[in-house]
Amino acid sequence: MSQEVLAQIEAQIGAYIQLSEEEKIAILETVVVQKIAKGTDLLRAGMLTSNAYQILEGCVRKYYLTEDGEDKTVDFFTEGQIAANFDTINNQVPSEYYLTCTEDCLLLVVNSEKERATYTRFPRLESLARIFLEQEIAKIQKRLTRYIMNSPEQRYKDLLEHRPDLLQRVPQYQLASYIGVKPESFSRIKRRYTQSK
Amino acid sequence: MSQEVLAQIEAQIGAYIQLSEEEKIAILETVVVQKIAKGTDLLRAGMLTSNAYQILEGCVRKYYLTEDGEDKTVDFFTEGQIAANFDTINNQVPSEYYLTCTEDCLLLVVNSEKERATYTRFPRLESLARIFLEQEIAKIQKRLTRYIMNSPEQRYKDLLEHRPDLLQRVPQYQLASYIGVKPESFSRIKRRYTQSK
Repeated sequence: MSQEVLAQIEAQIGAYIQLSEEEKIAILETVVVQKIAKGTDLLRAGMLTSNAYQILEGCVRKYYLTEDGEDKTVDFFTEGQIAANFDTINNQVPSEYYLTCTEDCLLLVVNSEKERATYTRFPRLESLARIFLEQEIAKIQKRLTRYIMNSPEQRYKDLLEHRPDLLQRVPQYQLASYIGVKPESFSRIKRRYTQSK
Repeated sequence: MSQEVLAQIEAQIGAYIQLSEEEKIAILETVVVQKIAKGTDLLRAGMLTSNAYQILEGCVRKYYLTEDGEDKTVDFFTEGQIAANFDTINNQVPSEYYLTCTEDCLLLVVNSEKERATYTRFPRLESLARIFLEQEIAKIQKRLTRYIMNSPEQRYKDLLEHRPDLLQRVPQYQLASYIGVKPESFSRIKRRYTQSK
């Protein structure tokens, strides 16, 4: 692992605790940094996995293929976010969805068995994981709430406000699905919004 | 705390580990069981809290009051679920929403400071908490996914399938908000669905 990546992890954790040398080594032994090419599936529907992925660079798309053959994008994970199917990781339930790199990615791969072993040795790191997970729950709940409360137009504004980079990074039909509208509606909303500015 | 409640906690945890006597005592010292009357706010917009609530009996509604004075229901927590604003608990950010008992409730109140102290003494319990949180993330992600992928009609069916008890427990206008439709639309969908059966 490069010093740069370690520095990034330390900066992330540094807000909570100062890592000891032993903890740093344990982290280095637990996670693997991988370059993954655009187009690679990290997880496919029907598959099992023990890995969670934190995105250091790049973008991972989460999508379902419906029985009608429709491709429904429900999420994008970019720098700093975690792409993981915890149902599959913890309960050995085959995944219902796909996780695919839409760009060349630099990922922190966390194997759940190694992770567990590290926490047994360093309970303090598990405390951090718990807090990160609670923050993650707060974020997903916020997204769900905004999704429920907002009209498609407001969801488009929300996208501009919270994830403006996605507009440059992913195709429009995937963004349409992500905010729950048809591609035609997405174009219309975008046009209307751009004109009204 | 009643033996019944302890038995309930043990059953929940028992799927993962056998609790030692010390751990049982620690849990009893960490959580408080409270009866809370219907109508009581557990959390209000603008407030801080250190408490998370697991619902043993009853129903808690999560809702926002918008600037236009609209009351928007975004979630209901019933038996077994956790009602908690982790953003407020961990980051001391005032809550943006309300958590209100819509029935007389029996709640397991978990104070985050006491919780942390217990985990320091019993790291195994923190491992459990981490796994519960990961399961929670999987559940919220599933709900978000179904919400994004489904039409209002499908969301109504989803409600019948996943939370049929809510139809008996809470007013229809709140359920309408929960599935993201106007009350009139909810009545229409319900009528159409009932006729087609």
